[in-house]
Amino acid sequence: MTISRLLKERIRYAPYLSKVKDVKELIPLFKDGQNIGWSGFTGVGAPKAVPEALVKHVEENNLQGKLRFNLFVGASAGPEECLWAEHDMISRRAPHQVGKPISKAINAGKISFFDKHLSMFPQDLTYGFYTRNRTDNKILDYTIIEATAIKEDGSIVPGPSVGGSPEFITVSDKVIIEVNTATPSFEGLHDIDMPLNPPFRQPYPYVKVDDKCGVDSIPVDPEKVIAIVESTEMDKVPPNTPSDGMSKAIANHLVEFFRDEVKHGRLPENLHPLQSGIGNIANAVIEGLTDAKFKHLNVWTEVLQDSFLDLFDNGSLDYATATSVRLTEKGFERLFNDWDNYKHKLCLRSQVVSNNPEMIRRLGVIAMNTPVEIDIYAHANSTNVNGSRMLNGLGGSADFLRNAKLSIMHAPSARPTKVDPTGISTIVPMASHVDQTEHDLDVVVTDQGLADLRGLAPRERAHVIIDNCAHPDYKDLLNDYLERSEHYARKHSCLHEPHMLKNAHKFHTNLIERGTMKVDSWDPVE
Amino acid sequence: MTISRLLKERIRYAPYLSKVKDVKELIPLFKDGQNIGWSGFTGVGAPKAVPEALVKHVEENNLQGKLRFNLFVGASAGPEECLWAEHDMISRRAPHQVGKPISKAINAGKISFFDKHLSMFPQDLTYGFYTRNRTDNKILDYTIIEATAIKEDGSIVPGPSVGGSPEFITVSDKVIIEVNTATPSFEGLHDIDMPLNPPFRQPYPYVKVDDKCGVDSIPVDPEKVIAIVESTEMDKVPPNTPSDGMSKAIANHLVEFFRDEVKHGRLPENLHPLQSGIGNIANAVIEGLTDAKFKHLNVWTEVLQDSFLDLFDNGSLDYATATSVRLTEKGFERLFNDWDNYKHKLCLRSQVVSNNPEMIRRLGVIAMNTPVEIDIYAHANSTNVNGSRMLNGLGGSADFLRNAKLSIMHAPSARPTKVDPTGISTIVPMASHVDQTEHDLDVVVTDQGLADLRGLAPRERAHVIIDNCAHPDYKDLLNDYLERSEHYARKHSCLHEPHMLKNAHKFHTNLIERGTMKVDSWDPVE
Repeated sequence: MTISRLLKERIRYAPYLSKVKDVKELIPLFKDGQNIGWSGFTGVGAPKAVPEALVKHVEENNLQGKLRFNLFVGASAGPEECLWAEHDMISRRAPHQVGKPISKAINAGKISFFDKHLSMFPQDLTYGFYTRNRTDNKILDYTIIEATAIKEDGSIVPGPSVGGSPEFITVSDKVIIEVNTATPSFEGLHDIDMPLNPPFRQPYPYVKVDDKCGVDSIPVDPEKVIAIVESTEMDKVPPNTPSDGMSKAIANHLVEFFRDEVKHGRLPENLHPLQSGIGNIANAVIEGLTDAKFKHLNVWTEVLQDSFLDLFDNGSLDYATATSVRLTEKGFERLFNDWDNYKHKLCLRSQVVSNNPEMIRRLGVIAMNTPVEIDIYAHANSTNVNGSRMLNGLGGSADFLRNAKLSIMHAPSARPTKVDPTGISTIVPMASHVDQTEHDLDVVVTDQGLADLRGLAPRERAHVIIDNCAHPDYKDLLNDYLERSEHYARKHSCLHEPHMLKNAHKFHTNLIERGTMKVDSWDPVE
Repeated sequence: MTISRLLKERIRYAPYLSKVKDVKELIPLFKDGQNIGWSGFTGVGAPKAVPEALVKHVEENNLQGKLRFNLFVGASAGPEECLWAEHDMISRRAPHQVGKPISKAINAGKISFFDKHLSMFPQDLTYGFYTRNRTDNKILDYTIIEATAIKEDGSIVPGPSVGGSPEFITVSDKVIIEVNTATPSFEGLHDIDMPLNPPFRQPYPYVKVDDKCGVDSIPVDPEKVIAIVESTEMDKVPPNTPSDGMSKAIANHLVEFFRDEVKHGRLPENLHPLQSGIGNIANAVIEGLTDAKFKHLNVWTEVLQDSFLDLFDNGSLDYATATSVRLTEKGFERLFNDWDNYKHKLCLRSQVVSNNPEMIRRLGVIAMNTPVEIDIYAHANSTNVNGSRMLNGLGGSADFLRNAKLSIMHAPSARPTKVDPTGISTIVPMASHVDQTEHDLDVVVTDQGLADLRGLAPRERAHVIIDNCAHPDYKDLLNDYLERSEHYARKHSCLHEPHMLKNAHKFHTNLIERGTMKVDSWDPVE
């Protein structure tokens, strides 16, 4: 097997050179029903060469539905996973996924998907919780991990994400490393805490976002490494959705709120470390902070997008840490063109650390996420449309929102359906699925305005959410629901959190049947 | 003012002696609308003398509804709070409460009650989150704290609970100390971490349940202490509900499960630190562990009950730490009769520490709690009957269940109504209120059996919960709901977590209308 010059440069542990293989040689290793771990988080840093070779193998031999795997990834992998879903190669999957073919297969009942807090998923896997029915006591058959370099001791320098790779490797019988030679090495960007399980766990010693005390690569027993393959494709991240009027309005409400908190001494002038999700609202918020001239900001989050580079460049952001840096091609160019500058301001950790309640609570993180819907009492649905149809998964939303100093959910007040430009209201009487509870959220914000819920009883929350956040098309309907529920609850001595259970999901059933949440009438309740 | 000999013995800081007052002198301090903090947690360690004097004052002057307070207690206080509720003296209350008059007033809309994770409530109070609408920038007007001794530096030795007292005192303008001379001093039993807020927080250094590094009393600026009063009443804890066939069946399922986990190497032989709630099921589980001859057990929990004394005495339990030791009169007698033995095996911490995600996750706690209901996909309702009627509150259930290594909910499979001995099923199609999500729970157990949910997709969970945990009277109904929902979801491509939203709460509406959850038919869905 000829080894490319580029690959040789990246592998600084000589014994691995004899393990370099052509992907085709690996195909026979993979059997139906195996448990496979992949590196990757939010679409970057996932393996590419082996998954693609397996797709080709399935295609050429018509093995669709006959070569299926239990696939464990820190969060979403790259487009290769979509190909696996299209070829019916996934029988079980956890935890977070992104890609239409994957969610389509989940919602068709072809993939058994289970969802778990991203901070807990890797640890629970190492506990043997997910593989307790195997008779051979194995947890993972193979872990396929993307590296951008191999150090002198055989340890793995990951690429743009760490995710669950440290845990996967510790419980994997056999490890396959894909060394990506298309992307520059990310050496020096990682700080990795290798897993220790109870009763041996120690405190994470970090008290600031830029504290480091882990290792800068993932140690692996070289005996476990059964093959090294070269990967020559860069990550493909689609361009970010640009901000628009709606998302800018949300950002403005939030910036105003932050300024007011600073004024009242409830936040320091540089706020607290920020967590922000993916999407155009998240981008607009980061843009808003860029324009608002906050200084010495810090970021403790799970994923960094292009917008954070602007926040660095404009001098607002001092330091950012995450488990993944999910940049567009242009973003990666910016990163590598100014590597010596950025590398001192960035750190990638394992998802167990980036999303750990211990760190989020200690640092007083400000968490911001986008839900599917929020109800009048501030329960939020992050995962299942109409209570049943899985989108992407929980992700780290609950890790952050449950533990942050300020837990914020932002969303457009209404979204269109085929028949009604405001057919879907984000504010609903009762969430059709609950991922974040009323006990978790402090602030709800839409393009209409911001509801500060701290210290409010449920009925007080309902009024401020409807008044400040609901789309005008839905205010009367929601107030009507609340008043009727209160009337009913007064008679039945249940005024803490009034509901009419018969009508609680009528927004949703109306949407399914008539394409809009605008209900004509409520079912009678006594 | 004459000072009793007993009181003098307890106050070792001389300047406080001049501050000893008769409770009557304090009445004029209290004005309608003030924010008051009380010590106390799970009914023990709360102030008694001042609250009772205020009740008398309200009674004698017909001030019901005219002297109302915003009352903040770590968790539930003692019977004095019920008197306050009966005399309409509470306008706002957080977070957890126990007592029929209190929940009655909440459900009648007289008390604005808001509920928060017990680990977060005291910190959020110190952030100023709950008092942000006050113009004078004060957080608490008074904290009334029960002490069992005052040390030479004026610091407070609490009684049987620490709760939120350390935080209350730091943000209180004025502190009133009730020194309880009826109960022995608890000196030496506490380990208290005084609050530090972000960005100054440090790791909690504890890696074992018996690690201590706090202080053994609560420091207070003596200038803030405006009065000391003597309290001469002991805590009154009602006798524990004895275990019965139902709770013993649950305990047996759990003990069998623990043994199996040990056998498979997923738990060490002494398990991991246990958290257990209040009630007859919790007691039966502790009894079950006593009989099962586990050795070197440890407890990291929020409240200790009498049953833990048995676990100590039988040699199974090495060490227990909590924020409250809620014993019956007999239990306290046992504690004090063997004080020199127990004091080396017990430690009370603040609720911010006992319930902290950092500690719960690090130690790998095994958490066990009782819900109102659990749905087929493993969302649980801990607070609101039929979605609206508040019972006691969230308590620490979510602090523990979200972060534990093993998150377990136990409940009877069915409960009686006036018209049907099994009119209420604990397993329902969709929880009418969600406090614990499907992402949080590992195990559900009823008297019928145990459902191990780890790594299962929602539909798999539904089958095992119905098969193993539902009462026989409800199995067919629940399976019918699941099958019809799957049929519907197959047509609508939403098979991840199938529901018929029109029927999702029909168990509950049927219960309200007909006194039983046994529904005759489902509403048609297309």
